[in-house]
Amino acid sequence: MHAPLQNDSFLRACLRRPTEHTPVWLMRQAGRYLPEYRATRAKAGSFMGLATNTDYATEVTLQPLERYALDAAILFSDILTVPDAMGLGLSFALGEGPKFAHPVRDEAAVARLEVPDMNKLRYVFDAVASIRKALGGRVPLIGFSGSPWTLACYMVEGAGSDDYRLVKSMLYSRPDLMHRMLAVNADAVAQYLNAQIDAGAQAVMVFDSWGGALADGAFQAFSLAYTQRVLKQLKREHDGQRIPHIVFTKGGGLWLDEIAALEPDVVGLDWTMNLGKARARVGDRVALQGNIDPNVLFAGPDQIRAEVTRTLESFGAPVGPDGQVGGHVFNLGHGISQFTPPESVAVLVDCVHEVSRRLRRPG
Amino acid sequence: MHAPLQNDSFLRACLRRPTEHTPVWLMRQAGRYLPEYRATRAKAGSFMGLATNTDYATEVTLQPLERYALDAAILFSDILTVPDAMGLGLSFALGEGPKFAHPVRDEAAVARLEVPDMNKLRYVFDAVASIRKALGGRVPLIGFSGSPWTLACYMVEGAGSDDYRLVKSMLYSRPDLMHRMLAVNADAVAQYLNAQIDAGAQAVMVFDSWGGALADGAFQAFSLAYTQRVLKQLKREHDGQRIPHIVFTKGGGLWLDEIAALEPDVVGLDWTMNLGKARARVGDRVALQGNIDPNVLFAGPDQIRAEVTRTLESFGAPVGPDGQVGGHVFNLGHGISQFTPPESVAVLVDCVHEVSRRLRRPG
Repeated sequence: MHAPLQNDSFLRACLRRPTEHTPVWLMRQAGRYLPEYRATRAKAGSFMGLATNTDYATEVTLQPLERYALDAAILFSDILTVPDAMGLGLSFALGEGPKFAHPVRDEAAVARLEVPDMNKLRYVFDAVASIRKALGGRVPLIGFSGSPWTLACYMVEGAGSDDYRLVKSMLYSRPDLMHRMLAVNADAVAQYLNAQIDAGAQAVMVFDSWGGALADGAFQAFSLAYTQRVLKQLKREHDGQRIPHIVFTKGGGLWLDEIAALEPDVVGLDWTMNLGKARARVGDRVALQGNIDPNVLFAGPDQIRAEVTRTLESFGAPVGPDGQVGGHVFNLGHGISQFTPPESVAVLVDCVHEVSRRLRRPG
Repeated sequence: MHAPLQNDSFLRACLRRPTEHTPVWLMRQAGRYLPEYRATRAKAGSFMGLATNTDYATEVTLQPLERYALDAAILFSDILTVPDAMGLGLSFALGEGPKFAHPVRDEAAVARLEVPDMNKLRYVFDAVASIRKALGGRVPLIGFSGSPWTLACYMVEGAGSDDYRLVKSMLYSRPDLMHRMLAVNADAVAQYLNAQIDAGAQAVMVFDSWGGALADGAFQAFSLAYTQRVLKQLKREHDGQRIPHIVFTKGGGLWLDEIAALEPDVVGLDWTMNLGKARARVGDRVALQGNIDPNVLFAGPDQIRAEVTRTLESFGAPVGPDGQVGGHVFNLGHGISQFTPPESVAVLVDCVHEVSRRLRRPG
């Protein structure tokens, strides 16, 4: 049995229920900007050495919670574990992004793809269980995966890309291959997230990091349709608790209504979208997560507080003029930079709590 | 005196006047994907050697017109010539992007900035005059510059960036410095584009390539306000001819209404924006330019034709149900890739003409 949850503000905000303050967590909150993370990473030898070791993964997941009053923890892992389990050979060279030894570039390689045996991802589920236990109910634990389209980008390109030439070449010239790959990815991601839920994840998030690279039309057919295929298969409850589903499409502001129509509980927004406008459009159907520019954390404390206040005020009072409770989870609009001064994060987190409490006071 | 214009479809579409077909040109149409460009580039020795030599710049500007039935030419140059003239030392290492020898990173460097003597950019105006003459009235010539914000990105970062950490650090911590830099840039860009108009440019385009990297709020204050400062100073006519102004903000779809409110003649769109929706929102005030994904050109001829047709149809019939003429200039949503097969461009250009003529036929 799990310890009872002491701070459920994140889960309540995800479900658009009242909270005393706006909960906050940060994408990539366990990461390179923290010296204690870099120390554990050095012991582990490599990123995958860190991610695949239950003790290390637990240790780094909890590190930011020791420093900051964060309202949620997120599993330390990578968005690309699923294609790695498909046999593509994920690695991270120091200081570089992810790389696949065996990218998927032709019909034969696509034909070979299948939903991997979830036992190959056992290290992730073990980490989830270990972290949940180590948290002891302090805050809820978020599980996650890359979206089917974002996985496909890396699977075809073999690494990050600035033009997505290879994956889009396949998309435009062989849409049949792309659809097959995405269908396999979607079913794999759904199984993977459900297994994280079984292991103890209290919310799950789909990172569609590269959805915003697609053309209108292609986004709906090749990203959104497969995110939907994932969501349809996800567990809604576990152990009698509702499990919020979060969808984050970087650069997806133009498609906000269509993303909200998939009925996740929460839609993540990057900093290009005005939170107030987003709330007016879809805030009666979904909670919103975001959306400060991570580069704000390079400014001084006064400027950080001013931007945090502006972001909270753009969302507006949690209870709208119609009596509708608006769900807002404060976050960055993308992952925190490795160059961030750790003391800036404390300023941000404390300011979110302080100002959002003030916004809730009547009159 | 200039030779009379034989094909003014581009200028008419910019001003929302009827045309027999949808005019088409491609961002970076004179460039590395063409073997004849690479040959001239090799003779010139370097990118700046090419751009600063009137004969070479004229030669490469006309190369794509020899191959394809394009409806406009665009000056061969770079968006960063203005900061180079400010003394920042622009260079291009082979296979890499632009680099500045003297980036602007502190108060003293910002204080030193001023609008450069336009004589330092004489090579650009000479190229404009030479190209205009060489065109002999075949199609109109477009001049261009980077936007104040996009110039500032490169001036602070010193090169391309994937996170804009340095320029955004300055923006958030020292907005006073950023505003001063942008004011200088805006006045310099306005003088620069007016001098291109005097030299023979028949339309001018402002490339806000990195506007889409900004947060909502910051975009309006640090990009849009200074694009407006440029537009307010630009000549509207020359030699009795109206000079269309084009503003292209990559990733600016969420701010379309605000960009159109600046009253340029044309707003450029990248592929994330639905052309039909954009037309419904602002098509009574501005013409639209765009917006196919350049990666479509890696597919086969049938798929290219299907995507071109879809794009033309998404804009819709040139004369709307209300009798309103809609201005559409066909283009990519960003620069053409250096890896593009040249024969794909012929398929695209011919298809735009053929299908858009068909769309104009009654019933």
